[in-house]
Amino acid sequence: MGDQQLISAEHGGTKVLTMETVNPSVVKMEYAVLGPIFTRALELEKELAEGKAMPFKAILKGNIGDCHATGQTPITFVRQVIALCTYPQLLENPMFPEDAKQRAKGILAACSGRSVGSYSASPGIDVFQKDVAAYISQRDGLPCNYSNIFLCTGATEGIRTILKLLMTGKSGSEKAGIMIPVPQYPLYSATLTEYNAYPIPYYLDEENGWSLEVSELDRALTAAKGRCIPRAICVINPGNPTGQVLSKTNIENIIRFAHKERLMILADEVYQHNVYAKGSQFFSFKKVLMEMGPPFSSNQLASFMSTSKGFMGECGFRGGYCEMANFQDDVQKCLLKSISVKLCPPVLGQIVVSILTNPPQDGDPSFVKFQNEKSTIFSILAEKARLITDLFNSIEGISCNEVQGAMYAFPRIYLPDKAIVAARKLNQTPDFFYCSQLLEETGICTVPGSGFGQKEGTYHFRITILPPLEDIRQIMGLFKDFHLRFLDKFK
Amino acid sequence: MGDQQLISAEHGGTKVLTMETVNPSVVKMEYAVLGPIFTRALELEKELAEGKAMPFKAILKGNIGDCHATGQTPITFVRQVIALCTYPQLLENPMFPEDAKQRAKGILAACSGRSVGSYSASPGIDVFQKDVAAYISQRDGLPCNYSNIFLCTGATEGIRTILKLLMTGKSGSEKAGIMIPVPQYPLYSATLTEYNAYPIPYYLDEENGWSLEVSELDRALTAAKGRCIPRAICVINPGNPTGQVLSKTNIENIIRFAHKERLMILADEVYQHNVYAKGSQFFSFKKVLMEMGPPFSSNQLASFMSTSKGFMGECGFRGGYCEMANFQDDVQKCLLKSISVKLCPPVLGQIVVSILTNPPQDGDPSFVKFQNEKSTIFSILAEKARLITDLFNSIEGISCNEVQGAMYAFPRIYLPDKAIVAARKLNQTPDFFYCSQLLEETGICTVPGSGFGQKEGTYHFRITILPPLEDIRQIMGLFKDFHLRFLDKFK
Repeated sequence: MGDQQLISAEHGGTKVLTMETVNPSVVKMEYAVLGPIFTRALELEKELAEGKAMPFKAILKGNIGDCHATGQTPITFVRQVIALCTYPQLLENPMFPEDAKQRAKGILAACSGRSVGSYSASPGIDVFQKDVAAYISQRDGLPCNYSNIFLCTGATEGIRTILKLLMTGKSGSEKAGIMIPVPQYPLYSATLTEYNAYPIPYYLDEENGWSLEVSELDRALTAAKGRCIPRAICVINPGNPTGQVLSKTNIENIIRFAHKERLMILADEVYQHNVYAKGSQFFSFKKVLMEMGPPFSSNQLASFMSTSKGFMGECGFRGGYCEMANFQDDVQKCLLKSISVKLCPPVLGQIVVSILTNPPQDGDPSFVKFQNEKSTIFSILAEKARLITDLFNSIEGISCNEVQGAMYAFPRIYLPDKAIVAARKLNQTPDFFYCSQLLEETGICTVPGSGFGQKEGTYHFRITILPPLEDIRQIMGLFKDFHLRFLDKFK
Repeated sequence: MGDQQLISAEHGGTKVLTMETVNPSVVKMEYAVLGPIFTRALELEKELAEGKAMPFKAILKGNIGDCHATGQTPITFVRQVIALCTYPQLLENPMFPEDAKQRAKGILAACSGRSVGSYSASPGIDVFQKDVAAYISQRDGLPCNYSNIFLCTGATEGIRTILKLLMTGKSGSEKAGIMIPVPQYPLYSATLTEYNAYPIPYYLDEENGWSLEVSELDRALTAAKGRCIPRAICVINPGNPTGQVLSKTNIENIIRFAHKERLMILADEVYQHNVYAKGSQFFSFKKVLMEMGPPFSSNQLASFMSTSKGFMGECGFRGGYCEMANFQDDVQKCLLKSISVKLCPPVLGQIVVSILTNPPQDGDPSFVKFQNEKSTIFSILAEKARLITDLFNSIEGISCNEVQGAMYAFPRIYLPDKAIVAARKLNQTPDFFYCSQLLEETGICTVPGSGFGQKEGTYHFRITILPPLEDIRQIMGLFKDFHLRFLDKFK
């Protein structure tokens, strides 16, 4: 107590919140995507803007899947409808196509007071819940009830909402245990830390294209027995940061496992439209689960989708949805009560969700343009995915599984022992050390593999495949030069 | 354990989440603003739409401060700038004023990739942080550093973020104790329940215009000693649901109390523009605290503001900000890390914050229209505040403190004993019983006082002052008839 007072006095005297008193779960949270490497990149960017000489002309933000920031243009129809809904005086303007106007009128009619400035119901405007349900129904060839859908402030908020429900409110061996992949998107690890849950890591098999093996799920769960109450398994498909696309058989095996172990499945399917590799196909967990029939078809499942990925890439609008399968009415009511405190997701983000799930149809004035914009974006993404995989694999000391889907490459880097020793001396993980030097020497901002988790003794980094095609060769050239210099320096 | 299994089997067999296993903190949360009375109102609204005969023609949603839903029109400049930013093709369109175009161009230049569809930095676009800081600086006549500002998804998210930091991560007598007013806006009680904190209720004095007395703060804190670690006091000014505006002396006394007890102040100042009563004036906690000088001026303070209230009422955009005063750098970094997991607040909501804090200036093409729209909204709100106070006070068995500010009346209803007995028989609180019958007989949707907290043995409800002026007399007529019938029925 004497010591504690001394420290507090040193660190700010009468302050309530000091680093000694801040919620310890928040102190422990880590979100590497916007972590120290990114913070340093922003500093460098500022110094560049102030005219400081650097070995590069610009920072390349390869750390985050931020489509428009890296040059992707918005889908015209999305922006037209939003502009019309925001400023309905434009409904008379001839520059807007008729279907965009009709759409906007329908949306305004569904808003309280015919304004996007009013609150919506907490799970979203019902017309949009119905759009989502119709989309899922058509995607899966199975019925979908709109009351099982809630819209959210990006998929992030949906995932955090469902994880919150799964918490036990207890500590020690009664903490909620949540299975998460390694490597994983760090929203999961950060949120579990914040919620004081017990993460149960299962490893994806890099040697087999980041496949997900049930034997590994068994091992992971067995290792966690007695340490927590296992309640759910999170699966990211297509994978982030790993880019793999699960086969239907693989999904069936995961569902069997979840059912055997009484686990809810959290299916992070935000990259469901981002599938590039020949032979790869997206299967939704909902479809596979329902088609397996009883008893599997009654397993609880929450699936998440976002407007920030796919072909729209509208990250700034913070649109997303969650579909709940096999949630009882009383549990759903409890969930709705918990989100009502936050009032509602942003209404314009909800509109983007509605267009994502209910796009212009054949014959509509905007159909052709919409389809062209969409297919151009996908064909370029597919080309980048191939190109980046090939380029990484052409470099000594790097191996990279095929980017089958999503928006990232997650190459493995084979670091010389001397580099590992040098990193340890700086109290850095070797991959952090590597990414840090990469940034300082080339301006390329990536995320170290340790931010996602990786097998002991292996090192990786994540980089988006989003930069313009014409820039990628140049970026990869810069990267290759750095990498070879690095190998040479520490050989 | 046997019983538990039996219950689980009854309630869904192999389900992971049942009402028995859902996070108990979430089960306990209550948010009365969108609670059972509102749910019932939505049902009635649906039945009305289906043509069912009712004693009324429409539901009046007096439960929530949703300006546009009750007929307020958006500020033109806000919507013009958002439309221009969303669909920059409009920048050539002559129907938009030059200052709206310039504003939009500046905003797009500050967005990554010049698109509102890209992520912003987690605390918001820096240009907007600077707009907020300049606004605060001008409001208070004191410097404000923009790095102390973070934008959020409505003030709600900012409040939840700061409360999260204040948690101890412990249970029992080491829970974080947070002082909250009674009556209070139920975001506070719901969030404290969710976070497993210890609420320390202090009572506002209804007999003295809902004033906040330091002796009551002392009493409340003393009563909580040994039960928690007191860390903060939340103050809502202007008050919600109570509508009082704190005097400068009152604020000084609260600051002295907070300093003496080492409490952070959370100042919910979202209604800072909504002050109507003659003689009432808004003083920010920041200004008062800074002007008091040492040692008070180093007390930690977080202040919250929203785009959903004031004169814009743009609830659906989910814009808000928080200013942190006297937070050390390391604590701020910790906060930024915690919000980075959620990526960023909606960019268009951030734009509304920027216009709220940096409106058109004298001489700009949009200035006169902006000012006219703003002053019209305020003068109508002030008239409604007066009218509703007077009308309530003219009815037998009702007393209502003056609505000095904010957007609600919180009248006290004196219920006959027989009504109280009838309510208890239905396992309802008497005010819930009353509001429920009010809804069924008139279509007027209110929130029972028990949803905000009230002194034992007193009963209230909250109703917004937002309906159009021309409707208010009629609504109050309906209300009065109901109320007198109710008194008569249970006398």
